[in-house]
Amino acid sequence: MMKLYYATGTCALASHIALEEAGGEYSTVRVNFATSEQRSPEYLAINPKGRVPSLVTERGILTETPAMLAFIAQSFPKTRLAPLDDPFRFAEVQAFNSYLCSTVHVAHAHKTRGYRWVDDPAAMEAMKRKVPETMGDCFGLIESRMFQGPWVMGAEYTICDPYLFTIARWLEGDGVDTARFPKVRAHLERMAERGAVRKVLAEEKG
Amino acid sequence: MMKLYYATGTCALASHIALEEAGGEYSTVRVNFATSEQRSPEYLAINPKGRVPSLVTERGILTETPAMLAFIAQSFPKTRLAPLDDPFRFAEVQAFNSYLCSTVHVAHAHKTRGYRWVDDPAAMEAMKRKVPETMGDCFGLIESRMFQGPWVMGAEYTICDPYLFTIARWLEGDGVDTARFPKVRAHLERMAERGAVRKVLAEEKG
Repeated sequence: MMKLYYATGTCALASHIALEEAGGEYSTVRVNFATSEQRSPEYLAINPKGRVPSLVTERGILTETPAMLAFIAQSFPKTRLAPLDDPFRFAEVQAFNSYLCSTVHVAHAHKTRGYRWVDDPAAMEAMKRKVPETMGDCFGLIESRMFQGPWVMGAEYTICDPYLFTIARWLEGDGVDTARFPKVRAHLERMAERGAVRKVLAEEKG
Repeated sequence: MMKLYYATGTCALASHIALEEAGGEYSTVRVNFATSEQRSPEYLAINPKGRVPSLVTERGILTETPAMLAFIAQSFPKTRLAPLDDPFRFAEVQAFNSYLCSTVHVAHAHKTRGYRWVDDPAAMEAMKRKVPETMGDCFGLIESRMFQGPWVMGAEYTICDPYLFTIARWLEGDGVDTARFPKVRAHLERMAERGAVRKVLAEEKG
């Protein structure tokens, strides 16, 4: 049985939803960022990067959202969370998730995690100021060129959907009006109606 | 036949090497960053992100290095560039590549691409100052916790190897002494001896 380490409000939500959608048994452990639990020796033994998510499997521990999402899809092939029998379509799924992790999540992180890249407080403030623009640009591209609808990849719900949902939920807090992106906004609403999503959000909130 | 759009000195080198190692036919097109060709209408029609690499396939265009590397491995399964029949090992490969794209490459990008995240020139200078530390930290983790040897994933050469090689080549320019990371340095030398790597480096230089 897989065990997910997550923290509320983080990108771990994507893997949490994917696990719930997959339909298998799994358990969760909440990591408390308020007390910097992710930097504790106990947690660093699980994930030396000091970040969430981490996924404990029978074979070992996995990290990094795109890798975990593909692994969840491959571990529960009957649920069809990714086009596993079509390398090109699978690569499109992976390219979307890679864009989210390497560009969109990184743009967002400049709001509150600027200390990763600078020591100067004024530079951190300069980073914060640009987040609405960079996140707006990313979602402009997603809205106009990537999102197929009704799900990210078109007719089939995939591991791209919980990941986009997770990051799109950060937009308003990042100072971006989601009304600019009607497809993304409709996707947020569509996702919020799914039983798996409601269940996971209730658990992470509780 | 696949066609790779690359620019010299960029992360596209990883996919270029992987294509060469895969052993199939492919062609390349060099994009000239010196004249901002990546921002030309012609190139933006290929990749609206205005970045390299892009991979034109019979089915359509792919972007994002981790997705392209997995696709190349899946398209040439006999070359065994990834553990395709073992979802957990495949996820480990993907986790490594995801760390490179979302954390290590991003750390490096703060040296010369600070304009992505700030408008203030002083903040860009603050970013540059921290690059030796962030890149050093990333490679400290790779050296001590991730790299298995003699290849990234152990005995088998995988799509992680050209990607690590590509980014490790940036270390000296980023102000990091590779002598701190003997396994990574030996890997750089091991990679440089491979015929495929020598051929690709000669082409990109020529």
